[in-house]
Amino acid sequence: MKVPVNEGVLTSAEAHAVLEAEGSPSLAGPDGPPRRNSGIICRAVGRSIFTSSVSSAAGRVGFLLQKEEEKEASCPLLFIQLNELFCTPDGLEWKQTARWIKFEEKVEVGGERWSKPHVTALSLHSLFELRMCIKKGTILLDLDAHSFKQIVEKAIAVQIEEYALRPEVRKKLTSVLLRSPQHHTTKSQLRTVAELSAACCRDKVSNRSDPGAKISETPLKEQLKNQFKKKIPTGTEVSNVLVGEVDFLDKPFIAFIRLQKAVGLGALTEVAFPSRFVFILLGPRAKVKAYHEIGRAMATVLTDEFFQRVAHQAQDREDLIAGIDELLDELTVLPPGKWDPTIRIPPPKCLPSPHKRISMHLWEQKSHCNGNMSAADDRHAPGPQHVSEELQRTGRLFGGLVKDIQRKAPWYWSDFYDALNIQCFSAILYIYLATVTNAITFGGMLGDATDNMQGVLESFLGTAIAGAVFCLFAGQPLTILSSTGPVLVFERLLFSFSKDYSLDYLEFRLWIGLWVAFFGLILVATEASYLVQYFTRFTEEGFCALISLIFIYDAVKKMLILADSFPVNWNYKINDVTLYGCICNASDTGNASVLNEMLLPPPGSTAMQHDLESAKWSLLTRTECLRMGGHLVGNSCNYVPDITFMAFILFLGTFLCSMMLKHFKTSRYFPTPLRKLASDFSIILAILIFCGIDALLGLETPKLVVPSEFKPTNPQRDWVVFPFGANPWWICLLSAVPAIVVIILIFMDQQITAVILNRKEYRLQKGAGFHLDLFCVSLLMIFTSVMGLPWYVSATVISLAHMDSLKKESTTSAPGEQPKFLGIREQRLTGLVVFILTGVSVFLAPVLKYIPMPVLYGVFLYMGVAALSSLQFLDRIQLLLMPAKHQPDFMYLRHVPLRRVHLFTLIQMLCLAVLWVLKSTVAAIIFPVMLLALVGIRKAMECIFSWQDLSWLDDIMPEKSRKEKEEKLQRSQEKEESDSEDSELMYQEKGPEINISVN
Amino acid sequence: MKVPVNEGVLTSAEAHAVLEAEGSPSLAGPDGPPRRNSGIICRAVGRSIFTSSVSSAAGRVGFLLQKEEEKEASCPLLFIQLNELFCTPDGLEWKQTARWIKFEEKVEVGGERWSKPHVTALSLHSLFELRMCIKKGTILLDLDAHSFKQIVEKAIAVQIEEYALRPEVRKKLTSVLLRSPQHHTTKSQLRTVAELSAACCRDKVSNRSDPGAKISETPLKEQLKNQFKKKIPTGTEVSNVLVGEVDFLDKPFIAFIRLQKAVGLGALTEVAFPSRFVFILLGPRAKVKAYHEIGRAMATVLTDEFFQRVAHQAQDREDLIAGIDELLDELTVLPPGKWDPTIRIPPPKCLPSPHKRISMHLWEQKSHCNGNMSAADDRHAPGPQHVSEELQRTGRLFGGLVKDIQRKAPWYWSDFYDALNIQCFSAILYIYLATVTNAITFGGMLGDATDNMQGVLESFLGTAIAGAVFCLFAGQPLTILSSTGPVLVFERLLFSFSKDYSLDYLEFRLWIGLWVAFFGLILVATEASYLVQYFTRFTEEGFCALISLIFIYDAVKKMLILADSFPVNWNYKINDVTLYGCICNASDTGNASVLNEMLLPPPGSTAMQHDLESAKWSLLTRTECLRMGGHLVGNSCNYVPDITFMAFILFLGTFLCSMMLKHFKTSRYFPTPLRKLASDFSIILAILIFCGIDALLGLETPKLVVPSEFKPTNPQRDWVVFPFGANPWWICLLSAVPAIVVIILIFMDQQITAVILNRKEYRLQKGAGFHLDLFCVSLLMIFTSVMGLPWYVSATVISLAHMDSLKKESTTSAPGEQPKFLGIREQRLTGLVVFILTGVSVFLAPVLKYIPMPVLYGVFLYMGVAALSSLQFLDRIQLLLMPAKHQPDFMYLRHVPLRRVHLFTLIQMLCLAVLWVLKSTVAAIIFPVMLLALVGIRKAMECIFSWQDLSWLDDIMPEKSRKEKEEKLQRSQEKEESDSEDSELMYQEKGPEINISVN
Repeated sequence: MKVPVNEGVLTSAEAHAVLEAEGSPSLAGPDGPPRRNSGIICRAVGRSIFTSSVSSAAGRVGFLLQKEEEKEASCPLLFIQLNELFCTPDGLEWKQTARWIKFEEKVEVGGERWSKPHVTALSLHSLFELRMCIKKGTILLDLDAHSFKQIVEKAIAVQIEEYALRPEVRKKLTSVLLRSPQHHTTKSQLRTVAELSAACCRDKVSNRSDPGAKISETPLKEQLKNQFKKKIPTGTEVSNVLVGEVDFLDKPFIAFIRLQKAVGLGALTEVAFPSRFVFILLGPRAKVKAYHEIGRAMATVLTDEFFQRVAHQAQDREDLIAGIDELLDELTVLPPGKWDPTIRIPPPKCLPSPHKRISMHLWEQKSHCNGNMSAADDRHAPGPQHVSEELQRTGRLFGGLVKDIQRKAPWYWSDFYDALNIQCFSAILYIYLATVTNAITFGGMLGDATDNMQGVLESFLGTAIAGAVFCLFAGQPLTILSSTGPVLVFERLLFSFSKDYSLDYLEFRLWIGLWVAFFGLILVATEASYLVQYFTRFTEEGFCALISLIFIYDAVKKMLILADSFPVNWNYKINDVTLYGCICNASDTGNASVLNEMLLPPPGSTAMQHDLESAKWSLLTRTECLRMGGHLVGNSCNYVPDITFMAFILFLGTFLCSMMLKHFKTSRYFPTPLRKLASDFSIILAILIFCGIDALLGLETPKLVVPSEFKPTNPQRDWVVFPFGANPWWICLLSAVPAIVVIILIFMDQQITAVILNRKEYRLQKGAGFHLDLFCVSLLMIFTSVMGLPWYVSATVISLAHMDSLKKESTTSAPGEQPKFLGIREQRLTGLVVFILTGVSVFLAPVLKYIPMPVLYGVFLYMGVAALSSLQFLDRIQLLLMPAKHQPDFMYLRHVPLRRVHLFTLIQMLCLAVLWVLKSTVAAIIFPVMLLALVGIRKAMECIFSWQDLSWLDDIMPEKSRKEKEEKLQRSQEKEESDSEDSELMYQEKGPEINISVN
Repeated sequence: MKVPVNEGVLTSAEAHAVLEAEGSPSLAGPDGPPRRNSGIICRAVGRSIFTSSVSSAAGRVGFLLQKEEEKEASCPLLFIQLNELFCTPDGLEWKQTARWIKFEEKVEVGGERWSKPHVTALSLHSLFELRMCIKKGTILLDLDAHSFKQIVEKAIAVQIEEYALRPEVRKKLTSVLLRSPQHHTTKSQLRTVAELSAACCRDKVSNRSDPGAKISETPLKEQLKNQFKKKIPTGTEVSNVLVGEVDFLDKPFIAFIRLQKAVGLGALTEVAFPSRFVFILLGPRAKVKAYHEIGRAMATVLTDEFFQRVAHQAQDREDLIAGIDELLDELTVLPPGKWDPTIRIPPPKCLPSPHKRISMHLWEQKSHCNGNMSAADDRHAPGPQHVSEELQRTGRLFGGLVKDIQRKAPWYWSDFYDALNIQCFSAILYIYLATVTNAITFGGMLGDATDNMQGVLESFLGTAIAGAVFCLFAGQPLTILSSTGPVLVFERLLFSFSKDYSLDYLEFRLWIGLWVAFFGLILVATEASYLVQYFTRFTEEGFCALISLIFIYDAVKKMLILADSFPVNWNYKINDVTLYGCICNASDTGNASVLNEMLLPPPGSTAMQHDLESAKWSLLTRTECLRMGGHLVGNSCNYVPDITFMAFILFLGTFLCSMMLKHFKTSRYFPTPLRKLASDFSIILAILIFCGIDALLGLETPKLVVPSEFKPTNPQRDWVVFPFGANPWWICLLSAVPAIVVIILIFMDQQITAVILNRKEYRLQKGAGFHLDLFCVSLLMIFTSVMGLPWYVSATVISLAHMDSLKKESTTSAPGEQPKFLGIREQRLTGLVVFILTGVSVFLAPVLKYIPMPVLYGVFLYMGVAALSSLQFLDRIQLLLMPAKHQPDFMYLRHVPLRRVHLFTLIQMLCLAVLWVLKSTVAAIIFPVMLLALVGIRKAMECIFSWQDLSWLDDIMPEKSRKEKEEKLQRSQEKEESDSEDSELMYQEKGPEINISVN
């Protein structure tokens, strides 16, 4: 069916066409019929359900944009200022009332301040009126003028000529327009406070010039001093919108001027940038509100990137109107009564990219017409993960390794000078303390498990050397190496096995280590790391949640152990204070005489001696007493007052304080740099605060003790382990069997962490190096085995904390724009310094001994909680507790039925529980195999969940990708009619549910 | 100047007129020229800057509304359901995709759930298309049909007749339209979880009927069972919007039907309510997105209260179009590129009232035109406080009192049955514990100050009797009486004065009390309470902040005192455990022999005796030892382990736990009733939790001890004080002098609290009774003086806590609407029960002794912080620390320059500091005078601040009101041109910065 044009739907564009046809003086431009751009035509056809005719506005606009594309001219950023004319006791006066870069900031009349940036909400009416203004006003395009005076004079001249403006108002108009405007300059907080003293007198403090003064031709001092200038990029052009009412006009004076060259118009603008567009609307009295709204509408239209291009390219009035019409068509409207138009809408977190909108105008709708949905549809559901360049197989031996080195080598020097930032200093301190604590903890446990064959000192030494080497040469130098739980369990089993079969533990271990290194090199050579593609979010989250939980569990467990070693006497009765005591008693006379001899050579009478002796015993301290072989008698011997409570206060205090300081960045108080500093240094500050409190109160809380002598913990061993001698020769070969277990463990542990650290969301610039990382770990394996030091792999939680402390965020440019996450400070220096510091910690003992252990456990708790809370998994667990109507608007909830989300979560929780149980028993040794099982379970879930559900809740496994993609295409064509969601997803990245940070 | 109509601006309305004039088949209704309603004409003229002609749409709409006003017909609530036609493998199928009451809820296609309610954001384009649909479609108004089938048949018949619809599609159309639709019914969370088990199989679980089935004429079971029905008020009517595409049509089939009587259309709607409107849009293929958007636009238009009235009254097509045009004019538009149209905007907290919008249409613009701005302008800045009826002077003796009694008497019985709510139970427990703690604290301090002339028992007795009597008879029974700080200071001074001059304290005090009561009655008789109008926000906040700070200060101070009485040995060395001890030593032989005689009559040898004796002594507990006259020797005697730490943990724990539970109401977890319960019982829960923890750990923390014997604390006094005998006769007259001080104190303390409690924001229904309150306090003064009990006045913080625990909130009706604060449960029962419980607490000692004092101090801290945080003053103090750009968008910041806000805050802080210093010194006795001085300072501030600034930051003092009002009017006319703010304030109550709650 073909509906004639004048029966067409009232899109504003067509209505306009109708109006035109109906007899208003035609000002149609010379550009011929607009049918040139088939894309636009296509679009116009696609949008109305009634008409199949071509919208002339769309045609014009498409033509203009195409012309611009051809010219490759780029539009500079526009700063728009709205000046309004006010009646003051001193006569008429121009005042700046609002400004725009992207969002509106208005001057609060009473508050004398800038409002918060907000999305401009207009009434549709004012846009229609603006359209009329452009239609009826003077349009001067590419005017050649060098001052505001020239502009005004030319505009008035045209009006007198064409619009029968009475010549007698010319002088009045000129005088009004050329009055100097008042700007609301941005002042610093300090200056505002300083003005307080002056505020006692009643008259307003304002740096006003004489209101009757003529506009200055050169920028004023206050314009140049304006703080706001810093926010505007250079090259920005200005649009001035001037509206107001005067009593000598009887019809509106309207002018829209585009200057040929952007010209600085003196004191007209708040900041001294050159102006490009000027819009003037002066009208008769009693419509001031309408003028204000039209001014805002003009400014808003000018903020539109799309209209800006049209305005730059427009040849005549009709082009401008077509631009407005196209804009009208894209407006979002909110119904009255359901929305309070006075609410200032805060700028949205992410915006549709202007580029996309424009290209949509040019091409996308065209392709839509051709039935080729792929471009739009690829965004519909996140497609299969693009196999990143790092993980593509070369097919050559060591091909991946070579490519890793090639990729990382050009960045090598920048890896050092990129670290020159105060943030890195904070990161070093934070990670250093975490590493040292970790080294001590694991060292202690290893020492316990291996009869001090590997003790705390070995742990320090190993951490320092392995970590530093890794940071110097690895593919991902942000990784922090550490001993991990599974390795610890393996060592424990190995040691008891060696003991049972009378084997030399270190030698046996050396051979296993060598085999592991060998297997590792084979894996590198065969590019086995490409398998990490099978680690989807499901696997990553399971692993990461487990490690985080272990961190939390360990922190709490250590605190409970600590409480055990400083037991509280819960049954203490204040009244019985006289009955409590702890006395050192001689256990037998032999020892008593020892003491006797030491202290009092001449013996007295027996009774006296006894008395004296017990008196002497009672003078001994606890350790002396025990050393002397005495024993402690009394009901207070086993109790230690206050320490446990103090320890818990320090523990929770450090944790909560870190949390608070980390979130301080988003608080409203204090200037941004200060808040950022507090947030960057949050953990260090928390540690310092609680160390201070501890030192101040002076209780004997357990402190960090680092070994201060440089020699093997167990005197039976030497620094270097000899490969032969202690064990039978076939042990060398037998070692290959346990080595298989260890290499699986190392590979899984290392690579899952590497995948987590190299996630796309972190926006790493310098690329990953999965093969290179594994290569380094394998080589370090040889070194640590020979030296009898612990084995090291990447530690997930500390590495995440490391990255989190190195986050870069943009400082916003336009007011109202959200700060963007820019990436991580990728460099090798922080890690390197951390490990060097760890190495020299032996000499730092005098300083480190002031740090109470509960404070460090608090930091561990923080790290665990922070890593855990960054997981989507946790969000989904929280969903289990929420009634559906209170659930946040996660994208996956829009697309996956709640019961399937819950099912997915429950399966994941079950897996986690199984992993936890395995980890806690001796079965821990098959733990890496269980991680592989996770991949299998994830695979099996493809039978339960639809492809679409999984794509929202998880990533897609690689080899299914092609088949599924085809299937998807087929389906999407089937369901083409039902995807009203499409538009909603167009601009919405899957981002929202992926947390970059670990806070 | 007069611009001809066809040159007018393109408001859609005029564009429409133009379109009309230009030849489309005229369907103009019979209603004559629309010039009848001058208001509308006026408005239309006022809005466009170009045309002065009359908009026909506005005229029509005004006429319709006026007609409705005349009929006094009221529109029932509309529930709007959008059904769309989908292609499924089983053929075409109708599915519900969205619904509206006020806000949109859509069915998430993938998620199979209702989205959160959100403001419908449309594209302007779809509204234009809808307008075209109404213009071109079949309009059947007041159709007499009883089933959906009838409706469909008539609509098709009309189309065939008028619009040349090919008759052969009739059957197909009927068959498609009469297919049974799928609704998305609301299920409970439990059912969702229950479905989890069934979710493992791949096919979707849905209670679908056969998709090909014909629509049922009677409501289905699932419709009747639907949980959502509960949310919809009875009497609601339904609008059905049906859109979709079919392949047998070549032009759209459009019908808008209004039924004569609302009829239940069987299974068409999700819930079984009768339908009033039906909109059908079926069109040819390939435009499904457009149909969807038009359907949404239709539904949105129908949610508009204003359009609903038009639709109900419309006589023909033109009326409907006029309604849409008027709606278009009121639309809020958001520019593209600055707003992502896919963001779902949450419903705003407060909406412009629909009533106002409609009346604006009818009258307000008229008054605007007449230059009478008062109606709109009174909202501009909060005018002078309306002198409430309670405070108007009658001019008769006791006139105020009589009016108070007359006002409160009708509510008397409801004051008891209004208390039947679980919330009251929580309030009773909470306030009871606070009152008991307060009674003990003040009792202890009074006993200390007056040598136990008034002790803890007197405090209990007095609190119970005075409180209960007050609650039974007072004007504001939500008030909780208590001793207050200033009274305490006065008693202390009075007692030492009596002692110095050898006067009988209680008799002296009796006379003072009688004089105070006399003065009080004079104040009641002269209606002096009307003076409370001079207590503006400034005074209230100063007073309230002071009292809250005292609460916080006292809570912390008590904890520090507690720490002093359980000192921690900060220098304790674990190693020296053997050296600590505390031994009971006989101070002299005399006492030793006393002990001796008691324990061991037969004496032995001296040495033995000595040994034995010391052994005996060492067996004594601390109290026994001290009783025997022994003294404690040793370095651990003065220390108590763990208790202090435990106390602080309980203190902070209770505080934080109360805070958290109170805020739990706004969390997302768990269903609303559960959260509300937790929030209502937050303090009781916190107390129970920490009492439990304390009991579990078993440490000897200090517990609440209430007196358990009923006799005067000081045995020298009797229950009744005799007025004569002990002092010279002239003391009776002299007492009048201190009585003046006391009456000022009582009056200020009582009335400021009364003003705070009776604030308008609390929406009390039963009115205040300032005179009656003072009357009660005066009479109680006589009673307590005669009985020698403490004097009582209203306690600000506890009373606020009382009110806070009795808050009523609406359970929301339409999805997306915010719960509203409805008021306070005003009744006498909670207070009464609290004080009766306080009276019988003497018998509750065995239970109360399990409550640790630190827990109660934690509650006090909570009360202080809660009361403090409800003050605007605190917001303004926070502003001092915020950079201007991060400050929240308080209304007063929009209107008052920041430096003036800061100045105001600083003056207030200074006043508070002075008050604090006064309060802490002996000068406390002139404290009430200082409160009066606050009023004076506030008065003086009128010289520094402009009237406007003060009206935003504070209330306006009464006697200035008239003068200022005139001045304001004058000014507002002057500045008429500059108040572009007007519209922003139109709907925005000053509410935002007034916190009702104390949390």
